[in-house]
Amino acid sequence: MKAIILFGHGARNPEYVEPFRRIREAMLERDPTAVVEIGFLELTQPSLETVIADLAVRGAKTIAVVPIFFAPGRHVLKDLPQLLGNAIDRHPGIEFTVSPCIGEVPTVVAAMADFALGS
Amino acid sequence: MKAIILFGHGARNPEYVEPFRRIREAMLERDPTAVVEIGFLELTQPSLETVIADLAVRGAKTIAVVPIFFAPGRHVLKDLPQLLGNAIDRHPGIEFTVSPCIGEVPTVVAAMADFALGS
Repeated sequence: MKAIILFGHGARNPEYVEPFRRIREAMLERDPTAVVEIGFLELTQPSLETVIADLAVRGAKTIAVVPIFFAPGRHVLKDLPQLLGNAIDRHPGIEFTVSPCIGEVPTVVAAMADFALGS
Repeated sequence: MKAIILFGHGARNPEYVEPFRRIREAMLERDPTAVVEIGFLELTQPSLETVIADLAVRGAKTIAVVPIFFAPGRHVLKDLPQLLGNAIDRHPGIEFTVSPCIGEVPTVVAAMADFALGS
């Protein structure tokens, strides 16, 4: 089974998770068979580690991590590789991939530019 | 003159600014007359305060701030209103507006979902 994890920063505000849920829901509308989970670096639950452990139990063989960040800073360049290094040690049977930061994807840039121009 | 500020978090990594520049460039491709600047909360220059001061000197009458955040956490709910409160005190002739976080915009959510599904 292949799974996709939307990896976010996390925040104290409980409503912070809502926009991540909206991305997940939009993905499931497009492909109801997709396995999509949300995992956070800090402050918001569940953590990336917890989500990976759950997916391992559910039999995931491939996990694609999509950083829901606009640009690669310390969290994406240092924290994420560190967390994934630990995950590879714990779950040697799972293949992990990491996509570019979603804010760097040209179609996302275009949608942001369209919105910002109208604001 | 109306100006748009893309408001980002900031990071230590100097390349962090690139994706913000890409949004700005995509906006200027669509409308070469648009006045678009990028301002950060911390770590990356220029700061939001500096950009607002520059736009005031250039004669901006309206400034639309677009939070380049996925979800409203402390930076958008507390830090941004605080910075804008100070800016209103300093620049009483400028009208400020704040858009929703760009990550909450349906067209941006759709573009993110499309990309994440293919990853």
